[in-house]
Amino acid sequence: MLDNEKNCAEALTLEEIGSRAKAASVRCAVLGTDKKNQVLQRAAELLIECTPQILEANERDWKLAVERQMPKGLLDRLTLSKERVASMADGLREVAALDDPIGSVSGMKRRPNGLLIGKMTVPLGVIGVIYEARPNVTSDVFALCFKTGNAVILKGGSDALQSNIAIVEVLRRALLECEVPEDVLQLIEDTSRETTKKFMHLDRYVDLMIPRGGAGLIRTVTTESTIPVIETGTGNCHIYVDSPADIVMAVDIIFNAKTQRIGVCNAAESLVVHRDIRSTLLPALELRLKEKQVELRADRDSCEFLSDAVAATEEDWGAEYLDYILSVKTVSNIDEAIAHINRYNTGHSECIVTTNYMHAQQFLREVDAAAVYVNASTRFTDGNEFGFGAEIGISTQKLHARGPMGLEALTTYKYIIYGNGQVRS
Amino acid sequence: MLDNEKNCAEALTLEEIGSRAKAASVRCAVLGTDKKNQVLQRAAELLIECTPQILEANERDWKLAVERQMPKGLLDRLTLSKERVASMADGLREVAALDDPIGSVSGMKRRPNGLLIGKMTVPLGVIGVIYEARPNVTSDVFALCFKTGNAVILKGGSDALQSNIAIVEVLRRALLECEVPEDVLQLIEDTSRETTKKFMHLDRYVDLMIPRGGAGLIRTVTTESTIPVIETGTGNCHIYVDSPADIVMAVDIIFNAKTQRIGVCNAAESLVVHRDIRSTLLPALELRLKEKQVELRADRDSCEFLSDAVAATEEDWGAEYLDYILSVKTVSNIDEAIAHINRYNTGHSECIVTTNYMHAQQFLREVDAAAVYVNASTRFTDGNEFGFGAEIGISTQKLHARGPMGLEALTTYKYIIYGNGQVRS
Repeated sequence: MLDNEKNCAEALTLEEIGSRAKAASVRCAVLGTDKKNQVLQRAAELLIECTPQILEANERDWKLAVERQMPKGLLDRLTLSKERVASMADGLREVAALDDPIGSVSGMKRRPNGLLIGKMTVPLGVIGVIYEARPNVTSDVFALCFKTGNAVILKGGSDALQSNIAIVEVLRRALLECEVPEDVLQLIEDTSRETTKKFMHLDRYVDLMIPRGGAGLIRTVTTESTIPVIETGTGNCHIYVDSPADIVMAVDIIFNAKTQRIGVCNAAESLVVHRDIRSTLLPALELRLKEKQVELRADRDSCEFLSDAVAATEEDWGAEYLDYILSVKTVSNIDEAIAHINRYNTGHSECIVTTNYMHAQQFLREVDAAAVYVNASTRFTDGNEFGFGAEIGISTQKLHARGPMGLEALTTYKYIIYGNGQVRS
Repeated sequence: MLDNEKNCAEALTLEEIGSRAKAASVRCAVLGTDKKNQVLQRAAELLIECTPQILEANERDWKLAVERQMPKGLLDRLTLSKERVASMADGLREVAALDDPIGSVSGMKRRPNGLLIGKMTVPLGVIGVIYEARPNVTSDVFALCFKTGNAVILKGGSDALQSNIAIVEVLRRALLECEVPEDVLQLIEDTSRETTKKFMHLDRYVDLMIPRGGAGLIRTVTTESTIPVIETGTGNCHIYVDSPADIVMAVDIIFNAKTQRIGVCNAAESLVVHRDIRSTLLPALELRLKEKQVELRADRDSCEFLSDAVAATEEDWGAEYLDYILSVKTVSNIDEAIAHINRYNTGHSECIVTTNYMHAQQFLREVDAAAVYVNASTRFTDGNEFGFGAEIGISTQKLHARGPMGLEALTTYKYIIYGNGQVRS
């Protein structure tokens, strides 16, 4: 009996959140750009003003996390400081400065019967975001969704709950002060698995679900959600060094793509090497990677040219290490390289280092991934680096949005048709 | 034991179909436009050449359908003739004549660090299509998917099985003759519910699932499929007649949108009328609609001005009649009209008839649907009418593609990046 009652109460609450978001989204969709920017600017001011309260809430999260022995890397992501809150405020201002994609009309053409038909960019409606214990995501995601006229429902990690509550309160105050429905931003405070699961079934109200976090979270959401999901973030990225290639450039690119930041989805995880350049590339590369103690896991054909490598297993080809580890696979030609990459990659970022024109063009055409590079580090796959100004994630799927997702990925379109009495015969 | 064996055999077969489609899609993705057009032209020739065999197979379907007492409308859709096969061949030639979207690069820009970044249009991969007993869909869908470099797996209605087998055989012969992997086109011949269900779970191989048919089919696929689905085809379309409006134009548009063809998704199902123009519009409209014996189901405020209307119930507002029936709802102003439409529509096509500039712009902006019209019949929502040259369906959802889907809806993109040694700092 009690269990049933509890379920009912929870369902109602989520139902309420959904229905409020939907109602708010209708009003949010037609807000002018000035009004939206006013909210974002005011929210930035309030974040700075309310920094003490936010840090106090964050400290409560932090103490609990320390008690629960949260790993150091995660603890760092959870922790806010005056500077980090200021950078969240800067993020809001940066999004305010971006062009508003909503309401613009493209491709307007007059048909033979006189109808004038064009495509108008419009919001998606309600966006759900499920993420882990990084409180800065709360304001980042709000800014992008709100700028594109969408309502958003957030479900952050339980470890950051107090921080998220504090940040959402501030953001909602900005909405209220600017006379915009506060329910364009809502946080699900019940972070239980059960409620999260129900959230993923709220397809009646939510138009798109974006999971932001590790591979486990993303797998759970794509499997469970009945709402369309955009997958983000897993990257088993390869660098293929062709023959002929500029060896110095190759070493620089691999070193950068592997070690510049290891825990990110656009870091390289695997080197694919043409057998003809192993003898020049591999010893030089091994020496360079020693600076960062990178472990090499190589197939037999490459081990010959490496002094410290361990033998790679089948599992290594599919691994996203997010660590100082690089697998090394030998191939006899570019076709083999492309086939290997298309088999094991996760649709993120792939690179060829070559001086051969034909191979560069073939690689760009035939490799199936969101971003395909010639002679550059895979670390550039990023909304800011691509010039989008901001990013809600990097899509590794093919529908709707692929690669770094800027504001445009949070929009859809409708056809608008101006007539003067046309009927179909 | 027998049951288990049967299940295993079926699973293997579908698994095989999927894996073959995936392998074929890789080769199909890089086919040149000339080669693809050659296949489509040859397929058109072969359809004409093999008309007798196709008609013979169709007759077997037809006899069975008559025995099973298939309703007349469905039987008409199932039946092929020499002319209908010729029109299928014309369809293939028309798609051959369309521009190939694959491989084109847009938005190429140089970043401050010298990277040259652009978006290349690429195929989705493998597309699944589930449809009913309309054998012409078999060649239409193949043409659109193949022209966009995708492999396709078809599951047609059991009533059209012999026809579909015959058509697919002809199309695969064209592929074989042109030395393109035949497996870019495969038909699932086991039309059992069980196999269809398994097909909808083939997410390992299939990138996109498109159901083509009635509301029941579409609901089943969206609920069951673990593959991303594009919903097509249900339309509860409204015409809102504002005050002031050109009454003659309004009557023409409503008459056309309601009666020009009743069984289609872009036909009007509901009239929303401003109370101030009821007395002029409704009697004139009723008289005109009598020509086609259209039944009017009106709310109380409109019934006053109609001599033969029946009282509408709540259910009428959400109904897609696909019949000579029109619901009539009275509103006091444009806001009420927009709210009513946004509540009950299915995201297809909506129209305002008005002479008021501000109302026209407001309606275009605020109504949430794939196609929003001012002063024109909703019957124009169609790939050909919009100038796309062909159409795989009309999407009533917001992600990836919305409204009439031409070739572009069957593509995605990847970012290509030309560098000269750039690394990230």
